[in-house]
Amino acid sequence: MRLTIVGCGSRGSKLAEAADKMMEVKRIYLVDEDKARAEALAATVNKAEVVEDVEEELYHCDLVIECATQAAARQVIPKVVARGVDIMIMSVGALVDDDFREAVTEKAKMCDSKIYIPSGAICGTDGLRASTVGEVQQVELITIMPPVSFEGVKYVEDRGIDLKSIKDKTILYTGTAREAVQLFPRNVNVAAIVSIMGIGFDRTMVTIGVDPDIKTNYHELKIKGEFGDLCTHTYNVPSPINPKTSNLSVFSAIAALERIVKNQWVGI
Amino acid sequence: MRLTIVGCGSRGSKLAEAADKMMEVKRIYLVDEDKARAEALAATVNKAEVVEDVEEELYHCDLVIECATQAAARQVIPKVVARGVDIMIMSVGALVDDDFREAVTEKAKMCDSKIYIPSGAICGTDGLRASTVGEVQQVELITIMPPVSFEGVKYVEDRGIDLKSIKDKTILYTGTAREAVQLFPRNVNVAAIVSIMGIGFDRTMVTIGVDPDIKTNYHELKIKGEFGDLCTHTYNVPSPINPKTSNLSVFSAIAALERIVKNQWVGI
Repeated sequence: MRLTIVGCGSRGSKLAEAADKMMEVKRIYLVDEDKARAEALAATVNKAEVVEDVEEELYHCDLVIECATQAAARQVIPKVVARGVDIMIMSVGALVDDDFREAVTEKAKMCDSKIYIPSGAICGTDGLRASTVGEVQQVELITIMPPVSFEGVKYVEDRGIDLKSIKDKTILYTGTAREAVQLFPRNVNVAAIVSIMGIGFDRTMVTIGVDPDIKTNYHELKIKGEFGDLCTHTYNVPSPINPKTSNLSVFSAIAALERIVKNQWVGI
Repeated sequence: MRLTIVGCGSRGSKLAEAADKMMEVKRIYLVDEDKARAEALAATVNKAEVVEDVEEELYHCDLVIECATQAAARQVIPKVVARGVDIMIMSVGALVDDDFREAVTEKAKMCDSKIYIPSGAICGTDGLRASTVGEVQQVELITIMPPVSFEGVKYVEDRGIDLKSIKDKTILYTGTAREAVQLFPRNVNVAAIVSIMGIGFDRTMVTIGVDPDIKTNYHELKIKGEFGDLCTHTYNVPSPINPKTSNLSVFSAIAALERIVKNQWVGI
């Protein structure tokens, strides 16, 4: 199996290192708009080589792993699926736009390309997917982060919220996932994963808050439906290399890659 | 795609009905040791026909869904994987035996057969699988059920525990998953799913208790590792058709089947 990794930041690097150890992976093509960064990574990964762009490699590779930015994802996804190549998407926020998501999903179906979305920084997407087979009354995502995580967020600035003066756990926002992903760019991926795997952006409710006492990024997922109830709590340690990413998010992508390359589907 | 469903009880019936509505499913072969039961189901499912045994249909079908018993699963799984046919296993307890599990996993790999295990009556297996990419310090499963669920369980009888006289939440057992699956046949599947997807039967700790006040089957999954911490709570409504099965368990299998037949892997 040959992979193309788009984006050689902390997530791309971890994935390339993990893929390098997988016997079934023969070649790893690396792409980054900063070519020096791709070259620095290639120097430490045996099976890797730097390539100019993704399109060229679509004739050679079996799976593209997007771990760049939403903007890059929006460009890359349509080209990959149209070529019938499978893709794993890390910048899931790129799929928030309904027309775009439906178009690429449809195209992927037509061209026999598979779209993989790892569970990311949250847990319980297994129960979420299963719950939607029956009636679902409620899906709620609650995200609590340290105040520093919201510095520079327009919604916070517009309301004149002084993050440094917050002493207790404080809710900043409650509303639909569709609105939340627009207002809180730091939470787009988790809210998008939950919405896509569950009951959509308009029925999924999102609450976002800050807590000066927590050290981790906390996500709570609550579901009520015909199956019963479930609630999950995930406390994510930020990645030591890039504090904007959590370890679990990268681990879930590596676990997914392991499954794909080994064609072993114990657990689904 | 052609399916063979082994076992036409409540789970097999629900799966057959769901599969009947999936455009991609062309034919559903039904097997049951009670042939009249298979025939009764076939009468209500358009694409279904009753067959004598699984082996015969392995030349025609793409996926076998085992929803019979552990004993049936032990017989069927090796034959299916050796033929290179994919299999979804519901009686996951059949995989508790290390030698058996390793042999069929190895055989499946050799013969390019995929083994699917749905998340079943629990949630958080997505986070569990991801967590094992890093170091994991602790995986704990806590199961609390109404006392009536443990009637006839040898472990309870041997200790002279009078289930009817229990007034408060009471812990019956704490130990390894390996021991728990032997002592508590009602909890085999969930404990096996968690052990197989996580850190194995010897490192997964299981606590089993009763609570006269709960109406649902409760499972709690706690994980601590390099990624951080997570905890999930699942309150399962028993299936109205067969109270020994929970709705979520059947839903997770239908969700998995949907994914497989559509070859759509949004979410992994």
